[in-house]
Amino acid sequence: MRRAVALAARGLGRTRPNPVVGCVVLAPDGRTVGEGLHRRAGGPHAEVEALTAAGGLARGGTAVVTLEPCDHTGRTGPCSRALLAAGIARVVYAVADPTAAAAGGAATLRAAGVEVAAGLLAAEAENVNHAWLTAVRRGRPAVTWKYGATLDGRVAAADGSSRWITSAESRAEVHRLRHEADAVLVGSGTLRADDPHLAVRGVPDAVQPLRVAVDTEAAVVRPGARVLDDAAPTLVAVAADLPADRTAALAGADVVRLPRAATGRGLDPAALLAELHRREVRSVLLEGGPTLAGAWLAAGAVDRVVGYLAPALLGAGAPLLNDAGVDTVSAALRLEITDVARVGPDLRVTAVPRPAGVPTTEGS
Amino acid sequence: MRRAVALAARGLGRTRPNPVVGCVVLAPDGRTVGEGLHRRAGGPHAEVEALTAAGGLARGGTAVVTLEPCDHTGRTGPCSRALLAAGIARVVYAVADPTAAAAGGAATLRAAGVEVAAGLLAAEAENVNHAWLTAVRRGRPAVTWKYGATLDGRVAAADGSSRWITSAESRAEVHRLRHEADAVLVGSGTLRADDPHLAVRGVPDAVQPLRVAVDTEAAVVRPGARVLDDAAPTLVAVAADLPADRTAALAGADVVRLPRAATGRGLDPAALLAELHRREVRSVLLEGGPTLAGAWLAAGAVDRVVGYLAPALLGAGAPLLNDAGVDTVSAALRLEITDVARVGPDLRVTAVPRPAGVPTTEGS
Ligand SMILES: NC(=O)c1ccc[n+]([C@@H]2O[C@H](COP(=O)([O-])OP(=O)(O)OC[C@H]3O[C@@H](n4cnc5c(N)ncnc54)[C@H](OP(=O)(O)O)[C@@H]3O)[C@@H](O)[C@H]2O)c1
Ligand SMILES: NC(=O)c1ccc[n+]([C@@H]2O[C@H](COP(=O)([O-])OP(=O)(O)OC[C@H]3O[C@@H](n4cnc5c(N)ncnc54)[C@H](OP(=O)(O)O)[C@@H]3O)[C@@H](O)[C@H]2O)c1
Repeated sequence: MRRAVALAARGLGRTRPNPVVGCVVLAPDGRTVGEGLHRRAGGPHAEVEALTAAGGLARGGTAVVTLEPCDHTGRTGPCSRALLAAGIARVVYAVADPTAAAAGGAATLRAAGVEVAAGLLAAEAENVNHAWLTAVRRGRPAVTWKYGATLDGRVAAADGSSRWITSAESRAEVHRLRHEADAVLVGSGTLRADDPHLAVRGVPDAVQPLRVAVDTEAAVVRPGARVLDDAAPTLVAVAADLPADRTAALAGADVVRLPRAATGRGLDPAALLAELHRREVRSVLLEGGPTLAGAWLAAGAVDRVVGYLAPALLGAGAPLLNDAGVDTVSAALRLEITDVARVGPDLRVTAVPRPAGVPTTEGS
Repeated sequence: MRRAVALAARGLGRTRPNPVVGCVVLAPDGRTVGEGLHRRAGGPHAEVEALTAAGGLARGGTAVVTLEPCDHTGRTGPCSRALLAAGIARVVYAVADPTAAAAGGAATLRAAGVEVAAGLLAAEAENVNHAWLTAVRRGRPAVTWKYGATLDGRVAAADGSSRWITSAESRAEVHRLRHEADAVLVGSGTLRADDPHLAVRGVPDAVQPLRVAVDTEAAVVRPGARVLDDAAPTLVAVAADLPADRTAALAGADVVRLPRAATGRGLDPAALLAELHRREVRSVLLEGGPTLAGAWLAAGAVDRVVGYLAPALLGAGAPLLNDAGVDTVSAALRLEITDVARVGPDLRVTAVPRPAGVPTTEGS
């Protein structure tokens, strides 16, 4: 299964709107006779690729799959049927398929006499599919907020300079995060300050994400902005109530008009997520800035936080997060750290929101 | 040697102004026949304690010591002579003694025909004696700045509340840091806001550090302040140029008058450190607040940073560090992370200033 998870991971960023899946087929004597992964939507499922590689050696063997084999005919036929046709005797999968349409593969296989086991290395397999599973469960794209800051929580110095706070190694990793995301999102403050490009560089064979610019008042993104070049597709999100002449300068661009946030400033995160979901986006990398991140956190629209902490101190300058709707410590947005890693000289901290109602150790 | 380092660590916080030292004595056949540590200044050195435990079994054996055995007669006799008298044939030590007075033990032993080896597990032995070695090398107490903050770098929420940002586990660890320090230091802002107690609680057999209150204008610490109770000794540091009536209210307290910082605000960190050194303080735990930490960092008076990061986000409130004399990213105070650990739900990050002139990976 560890191998199957590694195969699945190779598909990250490439399978939108599908999950990543990896599969290893073992002959009856336990030898690996086929490997496969889901490489892109419309392409063969991992099971089919692995069965094809295994050929006749699969008969009587075991298929090890990261996700419950599908039971429906989408762009490809059901994997349950392919496994039966290949004469597989045993199927081991990690995570059940949570979609109404595709689920039921395990039951179909069992009914046909195949031995089926579930749950092996489920945590690892969940993790590799975190974005897709979150998207299915929430009915909207999974959102990862990424930031890079000093140890004292600054994203810029007093004079506004911000290049470079984090290391070259961390910045290279961010390009991998972008590649693994279906869409990359920034706010108007960042667009104005940095004129960011947001495309993936330095990842071989990268799939470019959809670049999404939140420019509520259509006041910042102009022809010539780097985000509008042809390195990747781009969506400019503006307020639905803007007069038509405000978006005239963006005639060549893909512009979507969306409702404003209930708070009055910026766009409603849920409306933008619904629009992205409609466009088959299942994972969003929110790259800031601090104000957009605050609004999205306050709206409960962040599923994961990835912080790159540079071991540096500034003592002044812009903080990494603004106004997340919290005014007292007991109302702090509490997270749970799920991973800590060194990236060059920096520290990468990954955390997820703590489910409401789970008691903390505070005050004990 | 690993055992000797562990023995040395038991002395942390207890040996002021001496180093911590651990010693294991092995019989000629390699069996451990004696263990010892330096428990308090004026008490027996680790070697003597271990030799006493070993008795006649030490003859022809090996002494494993974390620090080069001393060669001078201070409150106790030289360890070099004690090792010779016990008939020790071989001495293995980790770190050379950097003091002019005590060094030379290795040479004396060698001259008397003892086999001497140095450098075993030197990094671990350096680490356990970090504060004392730093104090010897710099001629002033070693300073560790400790803070507890949210992942977004806040030490308080918008309404000023700060209890509790970090977990009970982290707060318990801070009491251990205090116990291991000879002095604990806070600024007037913290004294005013929190009326902190600063004594060690919850550490069995703790040695209380000297509590040091930086109250430049003698405007904050008043009789009845918790820091003035009799749980631990306390020093109040005020500006040398204050009229006498300004400190009249502090008549019962230990007050020291020191020069102001060249920057005009607060006291000169070097002058306060010299005063503490004179009082045999070798390690200082700087507990903030953000302004005092900024001034001390700017003055190059911080040797180690220990941050407790709670996985929580506030998006507003006081930042963990104020005004460290940095106005642009290229002038950031760069550190090197030496340790990362989970403490309950929190993250503890330990870092040391990066020596000036060491190239970074920035811009590469
Ligand atoms: N180190 C990092 O990780 C990182 C990443 C990105 C950016 N940055 C830095 O961050 C700075 C820009 O950040 P910023 O905070 O000024 O801007 P920003 O977060 O990029 O943009 C603000 C966004 O939030 C919306 N908004 C403003 N107020 C709001 C509210 N009260 N509720 C909901 N939405 C609201 C704005 O809508 P409107 O369109 O109406 O303004 C806009 O889309 C730059 O200096 C950049 O370099 C750092
Ligand atoms: N979470 C944590 O780890 C932590 C720890 C401690 C405190 N805190 C919080 O921090 C807050 C208090 O911090 P604070 O920053 O207001 O005060 P502070 O750092 O405790 O005190 C300021 C100190 O710096 C001196 N000073 C002021 N300006 C200076 C300058 N420009 N150069 C040199 N020295 C200067 C002051 O001298 P004067 O005597 O002249 O004023 C004073 O001694 C409180 O809310 C407290 O709860 C948090």
